[in-house]
Amino acid sequence: MPRYAMRVEYDGGPYSGWQRQKDLPTVQGVLEAALAKLQKTDPKVAAAGRTDAGVHALGQVAQADLERPWDPFRLSEALNYHMKPAPVAITACAEVPDDWHARFSAIRRRYLFRLVPRRAPMTTERGKVWQVPHVLDAEAMRTGAAHLIGHHDFTTFRSSICQAASPVKTLERLDIHEITRPDGFTELQFDVRARSFLHNQVRSFVGTLERVGAGSWTPEDVKTALEARNRAACGPVCPPGGLYLARVDYEDDPFAGVL
Amino acid sequence: MPRYAMRVEYDGGPYSGWQRQKDLPTVQGVLEAALAKLQKTDPKVAAAGRTDAGVHALGQVAQADLERPWDPFRLSEALNYHMKPAPVAITACAEVPDDWHARFSAIRRRYLFRLVPRRAPMTTERGKVWQVPHVLDAEAMRTGAAHLIGHHDFTTFRSSICQAASPVKTLERLDIHEITRPDGFTELQFDVRARSFLHNQVRSFVGTLERVGAGSWTPEDVKTALEARNRAACGPVCPPGGLYLARVDYEDDPFAGVL
Repeated sequence: MPRYAMRVEYDGGPYSGWQRQKDLPTVQGVLEAALAKLQKTDPKVAAAGRTDAGVHALGQVAQADLERPWDPFRLSEALNYHMKPAPVAITACAEVPDDWHARFSAIRRRYLFRLVPRRAPMTTERGKVWQVPHVLDAEAMRTGAAHLIGHHDFTTFRSSICQAASPVKTLERLDIHEITRPDGFTELQFDVRARSFLHNQVRSFVGTLERVGAGSWTPEDVKTALEARNRAACGPVCPPGGLYLARVDYEDDPFAGVL
Repeated sequence: MPRYAMRVEYDGGPYSGWQRQKDLPTVQGVLEAALAKLQKTDPKVAAAGRTDAGVHALGQVAQADLERPWDPFRLSEALNYHMKPAPVAITACAEVPDDWHARFSAIRRRYLFRLVPRRAPMTTERGKVWQVPHVLDAEAMRTGAAHLIGHHDFTTFRSSICQAASPVKTLERLDIHEITRPDGFTELQFDVRARSFLHNQVRSFVGTLERVGAGSWTPEDVKTALEARNRAACGPVCPPGGLYLARVDYEDDPFAGVL
């Protein structure tokens, strides 16, 4: 059975996360329902990151083994047709070897988090950014973030229901970019990269660093929290709407040359 | 009665345009209902641009005369509170002189139009950009747009129900910027500026220039269409979801120093 890799973009707002659940709308459920229109047997879908309810993706990567060979472009067109009007789209598709796996072959996940400090509630971007009604000190947040980079036991920043075998991970990058928005306000965009993440890790980082930006935590408090290796030492976990699975990297990009 | 200027941001998707209509949801209706919570008499609201159904605003400017003086910041906070959960927000507020008028004192309107050429349907930005499923030649579009700049009879690019006294307007700017998106595709952002616009003028421009980008019109066909001074010579009017009233300029910015 030929295997296909798909880059998947979605609005996580209407879904109870990526992973299929009985009687709940999920992104995996939408994609599997579309695949089921193309053949008789139910194809099993796997993905690089199992995003939570309300979390979006710009570059989730999924795989499926199909009964018969497809031209990858025609496959993406057929799936996009059958998924309408769900806010889920295949933006690239490629055939991959049998031993390639969307989850296990991934060498890096990149998350984007969008945080907008302004008094007024969001309108056109509601549910797509996290709005906080006070100013934030981005430089203090960067100083706090620097303590998180590298190889650590991230028990503090891991949800209590996390199923990962170990809380030890290597955080490759946590950059905070200041972007001037069309409304004149400054948006903070977090670029967070690691081989793999713990459950709620990015939202635990952002929620904690927001407290540093607001002045209620010092940058050094982040180091103390990390070293506590205790979930209770974490700052508040921030809401999901500002979080995007931006990109998944592989040793060889399956979508190289595909647009 | 003190007069207040308000910068208004909104998602136009749920509304039948800016202007109040009986039994239909409108942005003006939302703002007037919130103002009615603050005093006994109904305040009359006027705006710089009467946007159509589905058109968004980042910087609409409205005015209202109120019964009593307000601290402008407190007024914006009270209105944002009362407008919840409507996707309409006051992002700046200032007291202005009695002879200042949101519509008649405006010296320039700036519109942003977002056009995304890619096969896959939009997900997180659905209704916020115009997606077309084919490549566009931005340079040909710029050559076509150059014919529109300046003082012209824009009858071709004016809706048949336009109520403006004259079809003669001066188009100050129609720039097309190519922006690399997080999904890897190139978005075309139109920056369109004039003292005032005719009804459907921006959407008539963009719909026509899209035909040039797709290759079914030549850039010179835009000149021929303009010179025809005939609505039938216009290209297709594009959908409203990619259009934003971005900013309104005044001789003296009423919001200078206000964040």
